[in-house]
Parts: sequence; C-alpha cells; structure tokens
Amino acid sequence: MRASFARQAFMATCGARIASVLPGEVVLDVDFRDDLTQQHGFLHAGVIASVADSACGYAALTLMDADSAVVSVEFKVNLLAPAAGTTFRAAARVVRAGRTLTVCAAEVCARGKDGALGAPIALMQATMMALRDRPGLAD
Amino acid sequence: MRASFARQAFMATCGARIASVLPGEVVLDVDFRDDLTQQHGFLHAGVIASVADSACGYAALTLMDADSAVVSVEFKVNLLAPAAGTTFRAAARVVRAGRTLTVCAAEVCARGKDGALGAPIALMQATMMALRDRPGLAD
Amino acid sequence: MRASFARQAFMATCGARIASVLPGEVVLDVDFRDDLTQQHGFLHAGVIASVADSACGYAALTLMDADSAVVSVEFKVNLLAPAAGTTFRAAARVVRAGRTLTVCAAEVCARGKDGALGAPIALMQATMMALRDRPGLAD
Amino acid sequence: MRASFARQAFMATCGARIASVLPGEVVLDVDFRDDLTQQHGFLHAGVIASVADSACGYAALTLMDADSAVVSVEFKVNLLAPAAGTTFRAAARVVRAGRTLTVCAAEVCARGKDGALGAPIALMQATMMALRDRPGLAD
Repeated sequence: MRASFARQAFMATCGARIASVLPGEVVLDVDFRDDLTQQHGFLHAGVIASVADSACGYAALTLMDADSAVVSVEFKVNLLAPAAGTTFRAAARVVRAGRTLTVCAAEVCARGKDGALGAPIALMQATMMALRDRPGLAD
Repeated sequence: MRASFARQAFMATCGARIASVLPGEVVLDVDFRDDLTQQHGFLHAGVIASVADSACGYAALTLMDADSAVVSVEFKVNLLAPAAGTTFRAAARVVRAGRTLTVCAAEVCARGKDGALGAPIALMQATMMALRDRPGLAD
Repeated sequence: MRASFARQAFMATCGARIASVLPGEVVLDVDFRDDLTQQHGFLHAGVIASVADSACGYAALTLMDADSAVVSVEFKVNLLAPAAGTTFRAAARVVRAGRTLTVCAAEVCARGKDGALGAPIALMQATMMALRDRPGLAD
Repeated sequence: MRASFARQAFMATCGARIASVLPGEVVLDVDFRDDLTQQHGFLHAGVIASVADSACGYAALTLMDADSAVVSVEFKVNLLAPAAGTTFRAAARVVRAGRTLTVCAAEVCARGKDGALGAPIALMQATMMALRDRPGLAD
C-alpha cells in the first residue's frame, strides 16, 4: 500500500503523506499551502476531497487480495466548515469490504496553531472497486 | 467570476483555465500532467473532482447576486472511466438556482490525441451556497 | 424488465407504474397520495427517491445481459423544490453501462393541475450493479 | 419532533416508528413487510432510504430553533448488503449543526430472527435545511 501511495504523484504534488495504516484504516496528512487554496484563502474543497479519496482508496486496499488494484467508483463529500488550519488530517475506514466493492467513510479534521485537532471540516462516503488480473495496473 | 477564479490558487496549481462562461454554465479545461496522476498513471480522481467542483461553483456564481460569495456545500462524483487523455474538459450547468442554495451538474470529458472529446469520464452533482454580507469574503 | 417491475411490491404500494421503456431509458409515474406525504403535505423525499431509484435500476437492466439481475449500489438525490403536484414523473437514463457497474442519472418532474410537466423537483445520480449466475435471483 | 413525525403519513404507510430520540440523535424502526419489497424479496432500497432520511431530518430538527421546520436538501445512501431481516433500525446523528444547514450521518442495521442487530446494511450522508418564519409549514 505504501508503494502504491508513493506512485500517486498528485499526492506528492499536494504534499500529502501517510500518518498511519491499519487493516481497514488509513490516515493521511496534508499541510496548508497557499498554492492549494480557493478564492477565500481556505484549502480548496478539491484538495480536501482528493486526500480523503486517497485515504478511502488505501483503506480499501488494505483489505483486498494482494493481487488487486483499487480504483474509485464514486465519492460524495460534505464540506462542513471552511478549511482553515495549519494541517489537515483525513482518516478513512472501511465500512464494508466486499469481493468487488468496498464502501468507506472518511472524516477530515483541521489542526490549529495550537496543534489540536478540531471538529470535522469534511465528511466523505466512498465506493472503491477491486480490479484483479490486470497486469498493466501495478498497485 | 473571472476575477474570483484567478484567486483560486489551486486551479492555477493544477493548470486549470476557463474555456467558456455563460449565465449558469461554466466550462474549465485542465491538461494531463504527470504530477497530477494516481498510481496507475491516469489523472487522479481528486483532480477531476476539483476541476468539476470549481466549474460547478462558478456556474452557480454567474446566477447569484453581485455581492454574493459562493462556497461548496457538498458534491458527489462518479468516475465512469479511467482519466486517460491529453486534456480534460469539465462542463457545469446550474440545474436549479435558489436564493441560498444552487444545485449544479457537471460532466468531465477527455480529449484524445486526435483532439476529439470522448464520452464522459466523470459525472458530478453538487450543491453550492451563496454567502452574502461577508465583507471578509471577496468573491 | 416489465416482469421484474411487476415483482417490486413496493412500487405497487406507492402506486408507481411504467410510463415508457427504451434501451437505457425508463420513465416511471407516481401519483400524489395523502399516505405518501411528509409533515408539510408534500410527497415524502423517500417516495421521490424510491421511484427514481427504481427508474435508474430498470434503465440499467435494459442494457444488461439477459441473465443479469440488477441491484442498487448507491444513489444520491438532490431535492430541488417541494414535491407539490398531482403526478410525478421520474425519467432515468444510463450514462455509462459497464460490465459490472452502470451509472444512471434521473430527473423527477411534477405535473400540475393543468397537466403540464414543470421544472425538475429532484435530481439523482445512481450506481447499479449487475449480478450474474445467481439462480436465486429472478430478475 | 414527535408531533411532526406523526404527521409524516408516509412513515405510517411504511410502518416506521420512533425507537429513541436524544438531542442530535434519532433512531427509527421499520418491520419487514411483503408490500415493501423489491423484485428479489428484500426490502426496497427506497424504503431503507426513506426511513434513514426521516431519521436524519428529525435528528437535525432536535437541534434547530423551536420555530424551525426541516426539509431535506440532499442525501446519498450506499446499500451495503441485501436488506434481509425481520426489523430494520435506522440510527441517525448530527455531524454538524449550522444555522441554515445541518449535516447528518445514518446507519441502517437489520435485526435477524434471533433479535440481534447485524452489521450495517446501508450508510447515509444527508444535508438538512432549517426553514424559519414559514407559518404555512407546521413542523
């Protein structure tokens, strides 16, 4: 899973990194940066969604067969509050792992200047799919 | 609307740009770039979602009062096919504009090497909110 | 597809019926009834969602192999306006038909006392799944 | 909140009833009935969604001003497993209560013949809106 994450160039572009991995649970961190903002100076909803989506995908992958690749089928995100903070933490967990489809939920929380995690600023529900026997897809 | 888009630093980071603006309709383009990919070499679903979200937000803004700022309440995206192509076009339209909430739909299509737009690779349904009387939010 | 719809007891309970079927497109009608309302006297959002979900499922089924059964993976619905009217029409179409997953979109419009269909009151985006080789599931 | 629920005729039609109410948390129960099924004999996804939507709406209402009415803006539901069981329990909680919008999450679990609640069969994420100063809307 860490090898696959390292190949997600867009996560590196955003500065996202793995905070922790457990079976069915992945936590990613991303820092506030001026080049990731929307028009009001908060982190762009798309960055929040991107990191939450990756966290969900890798949470799903931890429970899939070793020869499976994972792709996002769909996700839905509610933005609960402006993404203000110094660091953002996306914590994803598998709600149900099926043979083909895995459903995940993720929460994103912002860390303030005092280092404390606040209430969730975003909530995601996502469906991931296992692809098997696709030698072209290293995962 | 163009001034607000120019302040979305994350859109510049992704290389996204305005292709067209009409009342209730905004089209954005983003090029394939290696630093925007996921682990299989396709554009990351988060990039697709980010550009579609911005297109929806600005489509909504075109129909809001001049003193309104727009924020994303939520969005849901289905990824229909791998994001393979040279350029990606997100076309958003307002389905219903309310005083507070505006609902938008967007399709993202990929352009191949021959320059032709293909079938949609992603479909979004999004809710945007008008914020008024917030002098701190230039939009 | 009509045989399967006839087995959806809940659609009969709601009084829903097939208005038209084309490959990849299904239209269902449901009448306003007092026993289908929410607390303000409008049709309950759940009725709207139920009929739109069935329309999406059957639109997907029209493009699946003859031996496939269809189940809903997920759906998302935006309620655009109060469900006021005499009849409600849910029109679903397949956006992308895959071997396993099919993505559909549906609009629900209300018909007024003059018989004219109004603007959409609800918008759905849904994912349907084909089940094969499940003799227990007649579809 | 109980008075408003009693006016939701569709909940009575489905046989849904309040199991518990706390500030920000509402649990509803609905029994399996043949007239609520889909084509394979399981509870229709629309019934699951309807009860989860009502649970979310009333969870939101418990935290709104006394003069507010609640309406559903949108909801998204993932169906995790066939809705097989004798009773279904939709447990909704408020994730974030805002002045205008409230975001809720709900899980639906099935109770088997042994009376034990199983793993979730459905997961919902929903946005509810407070309407104020609408004398026409008793809530």
